[in-house]
Amino acid sequence: MISIVEVGPRDGLQNEKVFLSYQTKVAFIEKLSLAGVRRIEAGAFVSPKWVPQMADSKKVFKTLQHSQKLRKKTQLSALVPNLQGLEVALESGVNEIAIFGACSETFSQKNINCSIKESFKRFQEVIQLAKKNSVKVRGYLSTSFGCPYEGKVSLSRVEKIIRKMLELGVYEVSVGDTIGVATPKQVRNLLNRFEVSERQKKLAMHFHDTRGTGLANVLASLDLDIKTFDSSVGGLGGCPYAKGASGNLPTEDLVYMLHGMGLKSGIDLEKLIHVTHWIEKKLSHTLPAHVSKAGIFT
Amino acid sequence: MISIVEVGPRDGLQNEKVFLSYQTKVAFIEKLSLAGVRRIEAGAFVSPKWVPQMADSKKVFKTLQHSQKLRKKTQLSALVPNLQGLEVALESGVNEIAIFGACSETFSQKNINCSIKESFKRFQEVIQLAKKNSVKVRGYLSTSFGCPYEGKVSLSRVEKIIRKMLELGVYEVSVGDTIGVATPKQVRNLLNRFEVSERQKKLAMHFHDTRGTGLANVLASLDLDIKTFDSSVGGLGGCPYAKGASGNLPTEDLVYMLHGMGLKSGIDLEKLIHVTHWIEKKLSHTLPAHVSKAGIFT
Repeated sequence: MISIVEVGPRDGLQNEKVFLSYQTKVAFIEKLSLAGVRRIEAGAFVSPKWVPQMADSKKVFKTLQHSQKLRKKTQLSALVPNLQGLEVALESGVNEIAIFGACSETFSQKNINCSIKESFKRFQEVIQLAKKNSVKVRGYLSTSFGCPYEGKVSLSRVEKIIRKMLELGVYEVSVGDTIGVATPKQVRNLLNRFEVSERQKKLAMHFHDTRGTGLANVLASLDLDIKTFDSSVGGLGGCPYAKGASGNLPTEDLVYMLHGMGLKSGIDLEKLIHVTHWIEKKLSHTLPAHVSKAGIFT
Repeated sequence: MISIVEVGPRDGLQNEKVFLSYQTKVAFIEKLSLAGVRRIEAGAFVSPKWVPQMADSKKVFKTLQHSQKLRKKTQLSALVPNLQGLEVALESGVNEIAIFGACSETFSQKNINCSIKESFKRFQEVIQLAKKNSVKVRGYLSTSFGCPYEGKVSLSRVEKIIRKMLELGVYEVSVGDTIGVATPKQVRNLLNRFEVSERQKKLAMHFHDTRGTGLANVLASLDLDIKTFDSSVGGLGGCPYAKGASGNLPTEDLVYMLHGMGLKSGIDLEKLIHVTHWIEKKLSHTLPAHVSKAGIFT
């Protein structure tokens, strides 16, 4: 069984120009859940000045708490940058959060406005309060395969930062190729620095398809025991730094490949494609996913 | 060194609505050659009733014979369906041809208007005359991973047809995923039916990116000793049966991944991207390749 973390409703919508109502977001998340998606990043408790698209995350979570259309198996999570964010998340009934850091200093400064060292101090406080409230914490690491400002990022540096994040107490680190530059050799070289059990249980891979290498990097990761991948239905969103290029790995492309290889995801691919077509209408534009255009082959 | 067979000027343009002049085609091929592409499918000697876009292939080849801008290392080839086609190819100074068959009966009937058995009789005549004239012959096999009419195609059948084609005397068989349905496990299962030396010297893989799995299938093939891949600059063309979906694997995406993995292709990626942007202008639309939009990362 491969675990898929659907990031469309947060990472995806955050990078869209069109603002959706909270009711539409709720319906989007319910539809994903009904298609069998078990882990969904449903919102963020960040400053609405920086990310206006997520300003209504409290309403989204509050509404979903009473939803009849959300499967019980579905685990929702929210992005949380600091203690204030966590407090609102707790008020909203969130029981899993994700913190986010970077592997390169410049990206950390530009994205979260502090050094990597400072970000880890912040994480520590957040994790402490989260655990007191029985809230699970996942960690994101951006620019793990390259930084738009600094270029290449050394493998030893990335390994060190992943290990530091795990030591802080996150249950899983999502290793992100923020600008979609990774190739399979780089993926293999990074993953080979970890034990099999670490790869199986502690690491998730978050690839972008910016240069068409998304699924090749997934294959390299599968061969090295990775069991968890982040993806975005329709390929919604992506890093705004890669202009004109597609961003997030489309969930339906990922699921198509996994199922084609005899691996299970728990997701009904046909239903998932319907979700893409539905959200495309809400956004009034098509999304980059391949399988939603080409159809399933049986 | 990985050998790339550029199919944009034939397989690509053949599926374009816009008709380019033979001078533009010549310039296109020269630009590819100057970017370091060493093998280029430059035209086809098929009935202009069926493929009007290739009606001027004779002019293209004749002009290229005297081109100052074509590198000497560049091997051009032409698609040839039968003896008549071969005769025109010979008159045009072609010294490498490609014949094309299919792995499923219905596709063979619909695409080349005869059964697989009949097509092999035709191939035999063509190969005989080609060899008499010291013309190299390459073989294409369509629907090797799935057929739009018959669905799945058995591995043993595909293996048998590949071997038959090799026995006829083609120097290489290009194994085609015509409708872009293959996943890496299927690729591995097929390739494992051949010896290492066969995979290295006799097989080329021709993937489509219709469902986003193009480069993942390339990776699976690289791991199993494949040294030759077909691709199309910009992702030009593709199978017309997969409507709305991207078709041919973009050459720049392939080269980006190969170079990122430390493999050589002889191609200057920056120059290749310029060729995509140039042909996009001629066609008045953008092409699906990722790397041409996102840029190279160094």
